[in-house]
Amino acid sequence: MRIHVQNPAGETVFPITSAQWQAAVARAPDMADLQVSFAHDEAGYAAAMQEATLLVTWTREVLARFGQGQLKASRAAAPKLQTIFCTSAGLDRLAPFAWLPDDVALLNNRGAHANKAGEFGIMALLMLANHIPYFAERQREARWAPRFASVLAGRRLVVVGLGSLGGAVAARAKQFGMTVTGVRHTAAPHESCDRVVAQSDIDSVLPEADYLLLACPLTPQTRGLMDARRFALLPRGARVVNMGRGGLWDQEAMADALEAGHLGGVVTDVTTPEPLPAEHRLWRTPGLFITPHMSSDDPETYNDNSLDILFANLRAARAGKAMPNRVLPEKGY
Amino acid sequence: MRIHVQNPAGETVFPITSAQWQAAVARAPDMADLQVSFAHDEAGYAAAMQEATLLVTWTREVLARFGQGQLKASRAAAPKLQTIFCTSAGLDRLAPFAWLPDDVALLNNRGAHANKAGEFGIMALLMLANHIPYFAERQREARWAPRFASVLAGRRLVVVGLGSLGGAVAARAKQFGMTVTGVRHTAAPHESCDRVVAQSDIDSVLPEADYLLLACPLTPQTRGLMDARRFALLPRGARVVNMGRGGLWDQEAMADALEAGHLGGVVTDVTTPEPLPAEHRLWRTPGLFITPHMSSDDPETYNDNSLDILFANLRAARAGKAMPNRVLPEKGY
Repeated sequence: MRIHVQNPAGETVFPITSAQWQAAVARAPDMADLQVSFAHDEAGYAAAMQEATLLVTWTREVLARFGQGQLKASRAAAPKLQTIFCTSAGLDRLAPFAWLPDDVALLNNRGAHANKAGEFGIMALLMLANHIPYFAERQREARWAPRFASVLAGRRLVVVGLGSLGGAVAARAKQFGMTVTGVRHTAAPHESCDRVVAQSDIDSVLPEADYLLLACPLTPQTRGLMDARRFALLPRGARVVNMGRGGLWDQEAMADALEAGHLGGVVTDVTTPEPLPAEHRLWRTPGLFITPHMSSDDPETYNDNSLDILFANLRAARAGKAMPNRVLPEKGY
Repeated sequence: MRIHVQNPAGETVFPITSAQWQAAVARAPDMADLQVSFAHDEAGYAAAMQEATLLVTWTREVLARFGQGQLKASRAAAPKLQTIFCTSAGLDRLAPFAWLPDDVALLNNRGAHANKAGEFGIMALLMLANHIPYFAERQREARWAPRFASVLAGRRLVVVGLGSLGGAVAARAKQFGMTVTGVRHTAAPHESCDRVVAQSDIDSVLPEADYLLLACPLTPQTRGLMDARRFALLPRGARVVNMGRGGLWDQEAMADALEAGHLGGVVTDVTTPEPLPAEHRLWRTPGLFITPHMSSDDPETYNDNSLDILFANLRAARAGKAMPNRVLPEKGY
């Protein structure tokens, strides 16, 4: 099997290296027979893809090469292509998936972010429990203003999305003694949740949420999920974390709810747009702490995790099983 | 046994109430025979202390009533006093303890802060791993400046002080996969530490500390422990948390090390002085996040924890054992 890794030109943080590949094969000796090539330019891509059946690359590379209306050209350049492994977990930028040839499987990188995302999520909840957005504002004013805080133990967390991100946060929250309610597509149980409800029932659990954490993919079904009406369903003083996508909430409604004192604090790793322009009101919304879309990426462990996930999918395919990271165009993730 | 609870006049956050006492007795039925009185004024104190053998009160009340040179008057006002239970964990403001009559036992409140302090400590470590002090400064500038971060797993933490605060943080750090080295008076092992060294050997472990967390009492032996020389022993980029006392470090040396880029970030819950005046350089030291001495206090659980600790000490005394929270004047805590 011939695999080609196309690193984006100019990528300095995340390029997959030959050394990382060798280390991954050392962890997975059953993958030692794979043939692999690496390139970051057009000539390298054109040469390797005449033979490669599996392409490992980035969302923006897939967009540029396979985007809408380019199907013929992209297939001619990659005549033997069967599988694309995209090194992002959330592929909403590639949707809708009409561009994807029926005979090509698209794999996302779900799982690569889990450990980092779990740490970020529990940090964000602890920051809200300890009024860190408030103290950041007081530090800006050089003002010592004590305000007491309480522990997470016993508090009720609602996690929307129980994929690798939400699942990792739920597991950490249980370690801290929280009561965890999961919300996902269907109400199937989850090992780290005290209960799970279907997304269609979210209105019934919001009034009990001391903390709400958004960690689901952005799809037509989740876009604008937290609108003004649903923010109003949260109890006064509820605290919210968004580590999914800015499109999951009505951003203006969230800022309004903070300014009105209905929300007790928000930590968000995602905004609309990104990067957030300097004049945007969010930078100055009281009680809001912004991190610049870094919650889930860990350059030190990311490529190792990605290659382990790729190999797990190849191992499943060899055993005649479904590849666990295959994107289902009809679900949207 | 007659117990008197003297709440400070005007205390609104932490007064111990009769309802809290009843709830604590419900958790400890063997304490149902205790007689208890409550007061917050001088008349109430004077009346109750004619008979009370145990006084429950605050550091500032002890200072006012038993401070240096007032021994005769204070004993006349409390002729049957045998035990003072002070509802603070750190009694450094009462040291030296020459004022304490030989026949009166002084109990601190060590343990009441453990759960809250453990949550604050791991939050502070996660905030440093995720560059939160840096992002707070960028938010102040309305600037979207992504910077990647890595997980705590596998990183080396040195915890100075393995009392209830440091011990609780060490236990959380193990949950996150850190390698934990403890530093305390003697090198006795600790269940949450991979190893423990005596304070006299601290210089040998600082060069290996990715993270350093100060959580020890302030005593003549620990005052100024982290001076400029010891900050220089830390590896470049090391990150530091202080949740003990501002006097544990040379504060100017810490700020210098941050400004020089030697330290990768600091979260401190304590400063010298407190409150920190608006013109102080610490408010504007880059890479430093300040919380106003709130890391360990949780008003919602504090008095319940305190009364449980008092009862555990009384239970020990009834069984003829040493009271675990008794302060040893020669150790200073």
